[in-house]
Amino acid sequence: MNAAKNTVVACCQLAPKVGDLAYNRSLTERAIRSAALQGAQVVVLPELVQSGYVFEDRDEALALAETRDGPTLQLWQALARELNLVVVGGFCERLPGGELANSAALIDAQGLRAVYRKAHLWDAEKDIFTAGDAAPPVIDTVHGRIGVLICYDLEFPEWVRLPALAGANLLCAPVNWPDGPRPLTERPAEVLRVQANASVNRMFIAACDRHGHERGVSWVQGSVIVDTDGYPVAGPAEQGGEQLLLASLNLAEARNKRISQRNDLHRDRRPQLYNTMNTSP
Amino acid sequence: MNAAKNTVVACCQLAPKVGDLAYNRSLTERAIRSAALQGAQVVVLPELVQSGYVFEDRDEALALAETRDGPTLQLWQALARELNLVVVGGFCERLPGGELANSAALIDAQGLRAVYRKAHLWDAEKDIFTAGDAAPPVIDTVHGRIGVLICYDLEFPEWVRLPALAGANLLCAPVNWPDGPRPLTERPAEVLRVQANASVNRMFIAACDRHGHERGVSWVQGSVIVDTDGYPVAGPAEQGGEQLLLASLNLAEARNKRISQRNDLHRDRRPQLYNTMNTSP
Repeated sequence: MNAAKNTVVACCQLAPKVGDLAYNRSLTERAIRSAALQGAQVVVLPELVQSGYVFEDRDEALALAETRDGPTLQLWQALARELNLVVVGGFCERLPGGELANSAALIDAQGLRAVYRKAHLWDAEKDIFTAGDAAPPVIDTVHGRIGVLICYDLEFPEWVRLPALAGANLLCAPVNWPDGPRPLTERPAEVLRVQANASVNRMFIAACDRHGHERGVSWVQGSVIVDTDGYPVAGPAEQGGEQLLLASLNLAEARNKRISQRNDLHRDRRPQLYNTMNTSP
Repeated sequence: MNAAKNTVVACCQLAPKVGDLAYNRSLTERAIRSAALQGAQVVVLPELVQSGYVFEDRDEALALAETRDGPTLQLWQALARELNLVVVGGFCERLPGGELANSAALIDAQGLRAVYRKAHLWDAEKDIFTAGDAAPPVIDTVHGRIGVLICYDLEFPEWVRLPALAGANLLCAPVNWPDGPRPLTERPAEVLRVQANASVNRMFIAACDRHGHERGVSWVQGSVIVDTDGYPVAGPAEQGGEQLLLASLNLAEARNKRISQRNDLHRDRRPQLYNTMNTSP
């Protein structure tokens, strides 16, 4: 492996404070600078890190929402330019007409490259956000092709396929995985799904979770960076809490979908068979 | 949980001998009887357990192939009737015209209920078998709705969706997972994919692998029975080798796809968005 070809990818597992926009901006600035100091070239932040997650109601979310010209995306653009890196982070987006989206921005030294709006909404998000209808963006960056989706989207492997088929080498997924019961000795299913999604597509995935407690909700704290075979190269950290995960990845490896002499994970798909719903005996 | 409603599902991790049809029949008879003695009501056997896996060439496979009237499926039908259980097992199927399929039969006390032909062929299988074009069958049994697919099919989550959407409570997957390198401390990706497939569908999955060494090939030996949250309830066994995995499952749990007050894993799908290939920026 030629280290010169590698890209250093970071996940910054942070605890934003719901409603405290200035705190959250400085939290992300500190994290991005810290990741850059350690060599990060792509920095992934949690879902809704700009606003916090557990809104009292739609009005609170509306009051916290920002447009793509707002101060948070301006800050991330300034940092991306100054530090010459890619930032992928989640924010509560105010849409024209007062609608809201659970969005993630992809920003590089050129500026704002894409905004993705979460297409599969979780629980009370359905009262607050309008679901996106556009497929996950896949953006050519100096490090390779980077795709973006958000949290619950990862539970729909058909949705993960779209950026993979569009050539994403790395999928960046801001997440806020609510914690729940599981067998003590088992890795969280949220992490397993990231691993499986990576392995069936031979695509790197960086999923950045949050930590902290917010209005009775806590999180899995399972941030993870997974290789094209589906194995973690950084995280999930046993101890949770604030984490800076770093992984040096040869993103070009994701271009090769071959897994045996005769098998290519994408060419072996039979999409003409997948659309039928006529599966019953 | 009412144990009376539960179904005991078994995976019999066996080592067939390639080319020794009589040995393989008696091996499966011993395994099915042993599982029945321990209360099994659904018994899953490995892929191609009737013939072995590593054929020298197509001619050898043709010589070993059986039709659905052949001695192996006759034996399994007699045992299913005698022991009042469901058998799902893999066999090398001779099709009309001399074509071959990598198939799995679902048999219950009524007789042969379905034959599934593997739709995604692995490596040298492409020289030997004709890929199936029919979706995985989903069969109403006295224990619930049981779906069947085979090994590499599990790497295509779109394919696993079909039996799940058709109402399968339990998916039975005969597999022969060839062994390969992986990080020492990691569970094999083959097992993770079973877990992820189960969790995104809230469907039980029983994957039955083989063991042994056959013409230079060895196997993961990762047979596993996974619950609707994606966590193993039996296997994968650390030590490999011959295994009889048993799990008592309330298969009706798989009818409930809800994972939060507002989320249902199947109703939250947005299939109208999944067919587009227009995902690039």
